[in-house]
Amino acid sequence: MKKLPLFLLMLFSSYCFAQEKTLAERLGYSKTDKLLIIHADDIGMANSENRATIEAIRNGVVNSTSIMMPCAWSTEVGELIKDMPGLDIGVHITLTNEWHTYKYGPIASKSEVPGLVGPDGFMYKDCASVAQNASPEEVEIEMRAQIEAALKIGIRPTHLDSHMGCVFYGRPEYVASYLKLAQEYGIPAMMNQQIVDAIIKPNPSLFNEVDLEKVVLIDHTAIANPQAYDDMGMDAFYSHLLNNLQPGVTVLLNHIAYDDEEMRAITTGFSHWHAAWRQADFDFFTGEKVRQLLKDNKIHLITWKEIGNLVGNELILPQRK
Amino acid sequence: MKKLPLFLLMLFSSYCFAQEKTLAERLGYSKTDKLLIIHADDIGMANSENRATIEAIRNGVVNSTSIMMPCAWSTEVGELIKDMPGLDIGVHITLTNEWHTYKYGPIASKSEVPGLVGPDGFMYKDCASVAQNASPEEVEIEMRAQIEAALKIGIRPTHLDSHMGCVFYGRPEYVASYLKLAQEYGIPAMMNQQIVDAIIKPNPSLFNEVDLEKVVLIDHTAIANPQAYDDMGMDAFYSHLLNNLQPGVTVLLNHIAYDDEEMRAITTGFSHWHAAWRQADFDFFTGEKVRQLLKDNKIHLITWKEIGNLVGNELILPQRK
Repeated sequence: MKKLPLFLLMLFSSYCFAQEKTLAERLGYSKTDKLLIIHADDIGMANSENRATIEAIRNGVVNSTSIMMPCAWSTEVGELIKDMPGLDIGVHITLTNEWHTYKYGPIASKSEVPGLVGPDGFMYKDCASVAQNASPEEVEIEMRAQIEAALKIGIRPTHLDSHMGCVFYGRPEYVASYLKLAQEYGIPAMMNQQIVDAIIKPNPSLFNEVDLEKVVLIDHTAIANPQAYDDMGMDAFYSHLLNNLQPGVTVLLNHIAYDDEEMRAITTGFSHWHAAWRQADFDFFTGEKVRQLLKDNKIHLITWKEIGNLVGNELILPQRK
Repeated sequence: MKKLPLFLLMLFSSYCFAQEKTLAERLGYSKTDKLLIIHADDIGMANSENRATIEAIRNGVVNSTSIMMPCAWSTEVGELIKDMPGLDIGVHITLTNEWHTYKYGPIASKSEVPGLVGPDGFMYKDCASVAQNASPEEVEIEMRAQIEAALKIGIRPTHLDSHMGCVFYGRPEYVASYLKLAQEYGIPAMMNQQIVDAIIKPNPSLFNEVDLEKVVLIDHTAIANPQAYDDMGMDAFYSHLLNNLQPGVTVLLNHIAYDDEEMRAITTGFSHWHAAWRQADFDFFTGEKVRQLLKDNKIHLITWKEIGNLVGNELILPQRK
C-alpha cells in the first residue's frame, strides 16, 4: 500500500487522477468513442428484482449489476447466476434500509456496528442518519462484511458502488475505507471527479492508505431522477440520454424489477424508485428500441471487468480462509 | 416467581397440570364441548403470507396467528394490523431459517447468539443444528429479543409458540426459558401433555423459575402433514378433522399464503409446506365449507386471549423502557 507524506500527498492531490490518457484510451478506444456500462443497481433486494435483473441481463442490454448483500434475497442471486460465470457483478455497499415495511439490518454483528442500527433494529432510512450515527470504523466493518458475504455465496465481485450514494454523502472517511477496501480486494470502486474534488482534495490525510494513482474515475454517470420520470417518462429520458451520450465512459445506473405484488409492497409509500419505475426500466432495457439507439449512436458497451483490468487485474482475495 | 425446593417440585411434577377442571371447563364451557383455535402460523415471513393470513382472518375463519419476527416482512404486520386491535397474535419463536434462498438471521446481535448463526451467516435450517449449536442462554436471549421486537412494532402478543417446534425439539432448557418468558410477559405459551412428560418431568430442576401451576396445557394440537397433503388433500384432511374433533381445546395449526411468485421462490426445493400447500390452506379456511363444518359439528371458536385470561389476565410488559 503506497503511503505518501502529507505534503507530497497534498501536492499530488491537486493533479492526481489527471492521467495523460483518457479512460477510454486506456481501455483501448479512442478519445471520441462513446463507452457505456448499462448497470442495474439493487439485485439481491427482492425476488422480483432478482428475476427481472437476470432476465434483463440474459435477454436485454443490461451488462452489469451490483448486489445488496444485507437483504433477504441476496443468497438467491448466488444460485441464479451459477451458470453465468462471466457476469459483471459488484457489491452495492448498502448502509440504509429506505423501505417502510420491508426490513434488513447490517451483516456485521449489531454490537460491532451499533451506529448502523436504527431505533427499529434495522438500518436507517437515509444517508444523513447514517452519517450522523455510524463511525468510520463501523462503516468499514460493515463494508468488509458485505464483500465477504458476497464471496461466501460464490460471487467474485467485479467492482464496488454505493446504494443511495451513502458512502459519498456520509463522512469523508467512508470514501477512504471504500477505496481502501476496493484496492485490498483488487477491484475498482465507482468514483468520479466530483467526489475527488468534494471529498478527497479537502481531506488528503484521510486517504493515506489509498493508492490514489490507481483510482479510476468514471467520466460520466447517468441516472433517471424523479423529474425525468414524472415529466418525460423513462422511454423519452433514456432515448434522449443515448442520443446525446458524451464521449468517454458513462455508467448508466438503472433499477430493474417487475411491477408485481412483492415490489409494490416493498415500495409502498414511494412515488419514485417504486415498482412501476422499475418495470419501466425493465421494459426499456429489454426492448428493441434501446438496441437500435446503441447502434445508431455507435455506443460501445463495456463492463467493470475491463476497468478492473486497469487497477487490480485479477480479483485478489486476501480475506479468504 | 414461585420457586419450590427440588424434592417438592419432583413430587409436584408428577401431578402438576392435573387440574381438577378441564381446560374447557375453566374457560366456561362443558367438558364435552369442542373448542377450537384456528391458528395461522408464520405471519411476518413474507408479503404473500402477510396478505393471505390477514385476508383469512378478515374474511375467513382463521382467528389467531403468530409472527416470525426475524423475517424481512415482520414489520409490515405491525402496519397491516393497526386497525385490528383485538387481533389474537402471538410470537412464533423462530430459531431456524429453513428456506434455501430466502434468508434471515437472529434479531439479537450475532455476537450475543453465535450458536444461532450458521456458517452462511443466517439461522440454521433445522432444529437439530440449533440444538447442537445454540446454548440455552443464547436461545433465551433470542426469544426475548423476538418478543421485544414484536412489542416495538405495536404488537401486544397474546401467546408464544414455536416455529418448527424447535423449542421442543431442542434442549430441555429451551422449554424452561420459553415458559419462564411467557410468565414474565404474562401470556400463555403453547404446551401439551407430551411436552410435559418428555421434557419437564425428567428435568424438574431446570424448571425452578417456572410457576408450573400456571402452565396451561392444550388438549389437542392438529396440523396437516406431508402424508395428509399427498394422500388426502387439504380439503379432505381438514373436513375429516373437523368432523371428528374431540371434546376439549384443539389448536389447529395451518400455514396461509398465496401460491404466487414470491412464495414459490421462497419455498423453492420444498415439496411440502410450499406455496401450493399454503394456498390450499387459504382456500379451505376462507371457503364456505369450513363454516358449515364448524356449525354442523357444534364447534366453538376460542382464541389465545381467553386462555391468557386464565394465566396472566393482562399482558405484563416488564421490559418496556
